[in-house]
Amino acid sequence: MSALPTSVTTAPLPEPVLAGLRAIFQDRLHLGEAMRAQHGASEAHFETVLPDAVVFAHSTEEVVALVKLCVAHDTPVIPYGAGTSIEGNTTPTRGGVTVDLSEMNAILQVNAEDFDVTVQAGVRREQLNEHLRDVGLFFPIDPGANATIGGMASTRASGTNAVRYGTMREAVLNLRVITPDGRDIRTARRARKSAAGYDLTRLMIGSEGTLGIITEVTLRLHGIPEAIMSAVCSFDTLGGAVDTVVQAIQLGIPLARVEILDDMQMKAVNAWSKLDYPEKTTLFFEFHGSERYVEEQVETVSAIAAENGGGEFRWSNLPEERAKLWKARHEAYYAAVGLRKGCVGWATDVCVPISRLAECIIETKKDLATASIPATILGHVGDGNFHVVFVLDPNKPEEAEEAEALNKVLVQRALDMDGTCTGEHGIGLGKQDWLMAELGDAVDLMRMIKRALDPKDLFNPGKIFSL
Amino acid sequence: MSALPTSVTTAPLPEPVLAGLRAIFQDRLHLGEAMRAQHGASEAHFETVLPDAVVFAHSTEEVVALVKLCVAHDTPVIPYGAGTSIEGNTTPTRGGVTVDLSEMNAILQVNAEDFDVTVQAGVRREQLNEHLRDVGLFFPIDPGANATIGGMASTRASGTNAVRYGTMREAVLNLRVITPDGRDIRTARRARKSAAGYDLTRLMIGSEGTLGIITEVTLRLHGIPEAIMSAVCSFDTLGGAVDTVVQAIQLGIPLARVEILDDMQMKAVNAWSKLDYPEKTTLFFEFHGSERYVEEQVETVSAIAAENGGGEFRWSNLPEERAKLWKARHEAYYAAVGLRKGCVGWATDVCVPISRLAECIIETKKDLATASIPATILGHVGDGNFHVVFVLDPNKPEEAEEAEALNKVLVQRALDMDGTCTGEHGIGLGKQDWLMAELGDAVDLMRMIKRALDPKDLFNPGKIFSL
Repeated sequence: MSALPTSVTTAPLPEPVLAGLRAIFQDRLHLGEAMRAQHGASEAHFETVLPDAVVFAHSTEEVVALVKLCVAHDTPVIPYGAGTSIEGNTTPTRGGVTVDLSEMNAILQVNAEDFDVTVQAGVRREQLNEHLRDVGLFFPIDPGANATIGGMASTRASGTNAVRYGTMREAVLNLRVITPDGRDIRTARRARKSAAGYDLTRLMIGSEGTLGIITEVTLRLHGIPEAIMSAVCSFDTLGGAVDTVVQAIQLGIPLARVEILDDMQMKAVNAWSKLDYPEKTTLFFEFHGSERYVEEQVETVSAIAAENGGGEFRWSNLPEERAKLWKARHEAYYAAVGLRKGCVGWATDVCVPISRLAECIIETKKDLATASIPATILGHVGDGNFHVVFVLDPNKPEEAEEAEALNKVLVQRALDMDGTCTGEHGIGLGKQDWLMAELGDAVDLMRMIKRALDPKDLFNPGKIFSL
Repeated sequence: MSALPTSVTTAPLPEPVLAGLRAIFQDRLHLGEAMRAQHGASEAHFETVLPDAVVFAHSTEEVVALVKLCVAHDTPVIPYGAGTSIEGNTTPTRGGVTVDLSEMNAILQVNAEDFDVTVQAGVRREQLNEHLRDVGLFFPIDPGANATIGGMASTRASGTNAVRYGTMREAVLNLRVITPDGRDIRTARRARKSAAGYDLTRLMIGSEGTLGIITEVTLRLHGIPEAIMSAVCSFDTLGGAVDTVVQAIQLGIPLARVEILDDMQMKAVNAWSKLDYPEKTTLFFEFHGSERYVEEQVETVSAIAAENGGGEFRWSNLPEERAKLWKARHEAYYAAVGLRKGCVGWATDVCVPISRLAECIIETKKDLATASIPATILGHVGDGNFHVVFVLDPNKPEEAEEAEALNKVLVQRALDMDGTCTGEHGIGLGKQDWLMAELGDAVDLMRMIKRALDPKDLFNPGKIFSL
């Protein structure tokens, strides 16, 4: 894995930059160590590196002024949202100015009839859905964390609804972006489709702030379904669970959510969320549609599950039961980490063609059985995407080494199955060697684009690939 | 609109290029005027410009050798599929070598369990669906023409199913692409989602051969639904038809197809396809799902239509009736052109937010009422995308001028509504000024990317924008 330099010495900010930052941001410029440390830390296992300054932007115009100032003085700029990314995606490897966009959190325009909304980049997904509830619409993308929409676009995030509603790639209609040359552009208009030139929207999504700073996002929304049912079913075998999902998709059942949790993960969830599910491989489902259609989906899928060794099909249409279930799922990572006191989590993120998923998980389970550290498996089974959560003692570096060795085997296995090293977390610092293994020469094309748009390498430098 | 130079003098191919082409392609190198004229012509109203040579590629390796040869000698390369694009997208503005990929038409690998298929770029959409029928899968994207998959990716094509299944943007999992520096890359792997670096797949889709030559495409497929029903319903008012669609979408009805045809277009369709529909604004629907769910959708939508002034809701689940209906729809362009003997068609292609669609079409109808040339309206109403088909006498240049003036009003109206100048046809030669009007400074970003990847401007030069 790409190692972060263990000691980072950054030059202090040039005086004209400091003066300029003061003029633009006034009391929203922070030079104190606590604020810098908070913005240089990572939710995952990456070393903290301090930016030289943190500023809180309140408008696109401020971001434009910031970019022009920093680029004129060769100073790196690192965009920052909720800080919930887990591949070191916001670590200021070469110092510079971290621009925190979390206070740009206005919901600018809801177009209910068009099923879209324009928000500032710092709006969080839960805030957005609370705002939308009254107009009968929702925004489906739900990574575990309550991330910002700008951050989710930057890392091409997804979550439990992707099997039905897609990822951030499909969810974004257009972006307002500040480029390294200080341009304030909109990547597209509000039409639901367009064939107008290069797809700059999709180029920016997943580029982790290395090509531009996203300040506004227009998102596609969906109507809150007339009926929603959730269901839980445990299985004797992992293959039986995966086969259930594959067969349901083949029959055209539009599963809104389908999540897999292994026995270890179910044990963690039961303990953390005070539930009493069987501690076996389990599927969590959600079905959306009309009353009649949702009932039909539940009937069909429960029959398929029964044929594949599934146990009781516990379904519910009560909002409070559904909420409890999905809260438990969203907290699964914390539940896993909670298995071992004082420990930290490290989540892997492979995604493979669904025909290989059972094999990939079963082989991985075998590897984990020989490991000295506890680990759980959970995943978005309809997409072929799953995570191993290693639960590591931060005082035992040999555990991180063991996890890294196990992850190496896992990612290589996924690549051998024509899969990817990252389904939804991005590359950041943690997956750079794997990106090369996955795409080879194509990474050079990415470098050519980066050099063309950011010739001084100042936008979130050192992420995705080395130049 | 960007005018094509009326006389194009190209230098003859350098002798080493000719020798190289002969060595690579042998009897698949064509220098005769008939073959060159065929590849220099456009289905639409653009002037024919002859390439200096035409070659038929049979393998990716041949394309690599061709690119290396041409780039070494500053010779343009223009990829060519079925030649059915309509914005002059394959016109060899500066001469050079047109590489026809239509004989690279092998279906390489069907992965039925993963709902994907890998094809060579020259495979045509109808050929693909015939091949897939036996495994119960289908590929939904259906522009009017029987285009090649490579060409459809290049122009970000869509069609009647986009409202439910998306466009080429959503349909492609990965591409094999030859870049101007002769690299043979794959843009992604076969996982259904990935957060691995810049989205080169989407960058290539819609780039019209200006950044790379697509030789293979891996596509997402869908299961053929258990039940399919089609329906036709005519309306007293255009607003009533559009409102029916908006309300159905708001209720979460997953319309598989919903097409609007105005009274003129219905007259043309009746004459061309020997049908007897009322010659009023009409919606063509298709519903996919289980038997019961399809029935429920038809019930709900027919009730909505009745509330909006819809007439008889003529539905059918008979395959031959559905086939007849959609054949008539796919031939609508030819039906329109058939309204006037010896004439040619010119299709516009705006797409607006659906809340503005009724207004946009009604205003356009008013403009057309004052015109001296016949014109029809048809469109993918669920996406907000519609076409005016002008039927022009090729011997009367003043008619083309009138159409251009009407189109100018129409595109400006769409842009004023936050729409796009092209929903699915691409920019090519015909929409370059409008691309600037639509995206402004963002087009400079496209130019920067083009210069970085194709510094000599040899890949399909002169398309999308001028450098």
